[in-house]
Amino acid sequence: MKNILFMHGGGPTAVINASLSGSIRELYDRKFDGDILYAPFGTGGLMKGKINKIPNLSDSDLIRLERTPGSAIGTGRDHLEGDDYDKLAKILNENNVGYVVMTGGNGTMDTCRKLSSAASKYNIVVAGTPKTMDNDLSVTDNSPGFGSAARYIAACVREASEDVLGLPIHACVIEALGRDAGWVTAASVMAKSGKAPGADIILVPEVPFDKDKFLTRVEKIHKEKGGVVIVASEGMRYSDKTPIVEPVFQVGRSVYFGDVSSHLSNLIIKELGIKARSEKPGILGRASISWQSDIDRAEAIECGRVSVRCALEGKNGYMSVIKRISSEPFKFEAIESPILDSILEARTLDESFIDKENMFINESFIDYAKPLIGSIGDDFCSFV
Amino acid sequence: MKNILFMHGGGPTAVINASLSGSIRELYDRKFDGDILYAPFGTGGLMKGKINKIPNLSDSDLIRLERTPGSAIGTGRDHLEGDDYDKLAKILNENNVGYVVMTGGNGTMDTCRKLSSAASKYNIVVAGTPKTMDNDLSVTDNSPGFGSAARYIAACVREASEDVLGLPIHACVIEALGRDAGWVTAASVMAKSGKAPGADIILVPEVPFDKDKFLTRVEKIHKEKGGVVIVASEGMRYSDKTPIVEPVFQVGRSVYFGDVSSHLSNLIIKELGIKARSEKPGILGRASISWQSDIDRAEAIECGRVSVRCALEGKNGYMSVIKRISSEPFKFEAIESPILDSILEARTLDESFIDKENMFINESFIDYAKPLIGSIGDDFCSFV
Repeated sequence: MKNILFMHGGGPTAVINASLSGSIRELYDRKFDGDILYAPFGTGGLMKGKINKIPNLSDSDLIRLERTPGSAIGTGRDHLEGDDYDKLAKILNENNVGYVVMTGGNGTMDTCRKLSSAASKYNIVVAGTPKTMDNDLSVTDNSPGFGSAARYIAACVREASEDVLGLPIHACVIEALGRDAGWVTAASVMAKSGKAPGADIILVPEVPFDKDKFLTRVEKIHKEKGGVVIVASEGMRYSDKTPIVEPVFQVGRSVYFGDVSSHLSNLIIKELGIKARSEKPGILGRASISWQSDIDRAEAIECGRVSVRCALEGKNGYMSVIKRISSEPFKFEAIESPILDSILEARTLDESFIDKENMFINESFIDYAKPLIGSIGDDFCSFV
Repeated sequence: MKNILFMHGGGPTAVINASLSGSIRELYDRKFDGDILYAPFGTGGLMKGKINKIPNLSDSDLIRLERTPGSAIGTGRDHLEGDDYDKLAKILNENNVGYVVMTGGNGTMDTCRKLSSAASKYNIVVAGTPKTMDNDLSVTDNSPGFGSAARYIAACVREASEDVLGLPIHACVIEALGRDAGWVTAASVMAKSGKAPGADIILVPEVPFDKDKFLTRVEKIHKEKGGVVIVASEGMRYSDKTPIVEPVFQVGRSVYFGDVSSHLSNLIIKELGIKARSEKPGILGRASISWQSDIDRAEAIECGRVSVRCALEGKNGYMSVIKRISSEPFKFEAIESPILDSILEARTLDESFIDKENMFINESFIDYAKPLIGSIGDDFCSFV
């Protein structure tokens, strides 16, 4: 019997381990009798010939695995060159691996596609599981990882907006994950709920930053309400594509930039004389289990199951994707889809979702995203 | 029948509204028949003669109030001068207020003490409820607000450390609330739990920052583990008391500083050539209801009840404080205590809690703080 090997690629999400768990559940259900292996820290580990066994897991282990942030088998950001794929295929073959499941975003799925081609000469089947909180994979309704990151930002912005409502003395700029696509940033529109005012301004990277327009709007809201809540993508740029944050320093060829959130809060203080502060939850937003979305976890588990099915059924170069059946009530299906070379094209936020004029996000986005995050808790109770 | 009036002072915590709810529960239990009033945004609102009524609340409203971040009646940071106290007392008297309960930290309790003196000529009784996530009130075992902020940082650092464990490519610097006292920062020591490694380095403001020692330690841990998790107080200073962050700019007489977290991550990149990033959850750490501590909420409710008892029983210038009866199992009692002029002395972290040599926090701190945060969730399940 051949073995199956798992690899993770790119940054973790709140549900990358849930996909792994779904895959393992599928293997247990099918009484798979090969070894269940993983390459620690992804292709970088495999290149060094590192392969470990996943221990036998009880149901309660799997439930904990589904609620563990980070990557339980290690992930990496290693870049592969032409020959590397053949080398990986050879290592896999030497370890009697017949099936590979890689979990990751655009880059990892592209690696998956290339590896499926290189490994086919050994009859090794390679399949992919989608994973990205950026939600920029165009082949799927949404990517496992997005729902939880979206729920995190919606919930935290709701809480912060309630804080600012009760102490309306400053503009509060919250930085959201997602450098090139505004999906997670846009999810902050769902922070408005009950008494909680949510975000006043939402800046997505799809819309070039207009400093004067931004400051005018901040000043107007500050006059009306005292407190202002701004959510901004970490990747905000001017129309000429230069980042709005100044380069802080350079090491070798790498240029390091400041944070968008502190840049914007400093701008507000300097230009408007309004008190401002910045919050940057950063990777806490992709590692939060308390705000893990139930739907996101369910999608991740199903995608993990379907990828294993692809692999065991010989569908080389296929990945699992989410098909939305209905929004209300939310129903989805995880289905298989060939990984094409167009996988690298990142999907940005639909124009129809963006209210450019008001630096905000339209209701149509909520129709799309709300089912993916579910409830963010009971309404707050406040009197001001 | 005289009325009772509530005021909040200073920054909100996750349980400031729970104290308000406890006070209201006590009034309902006692069938208090005056009006239940509040001054919106604290003394600043009252100075302008603003007084509102708290509506009748159902049990489910009170439960929601106890789980609402921010200040449900508004809080402020207004500074009072000598004559202001007499003015406030006069306004209270004109509104038939016989009892006042103020909730806040050192500054607010000092205001409470001064107001109790000014208002005594009208036979108005003023009592205080402790509130500060900084935990720097010395008259109480711990302050309502601390347990939740501590639970938040412990839980988030645990999640972040699991993220770094699975992708050990950088040093990750997480900034914790608490500028002058390291209580919340120290709570990150409780992030280590099960497989999650937690923090590697904890920098509290009680220990002057030693750049060389810090960098040496980061480099050592990076060599051993790849990833490094650092938690640093927002108020880190050198031994000469100057902040470690450079002033970014000046507006009028106010000097604005950069963030400690991004300062330290930049330092690591520049001086060690190690990849580093920074996270600054900021006010999310005092507004998080998902990580609100059950014990903290219970303490807040009890303190709110006891302050009302002080007020109604004529104990002018008293506040409620927490007395720890036992740590295991955790038992506390909310008792009354006179507000002395020593209330302004901030309690910093006990020296015995700090492991200066290893830039870490001792077990004895965990004995103190663990009961206040309770569980931070089941152990994670990971294989690397």
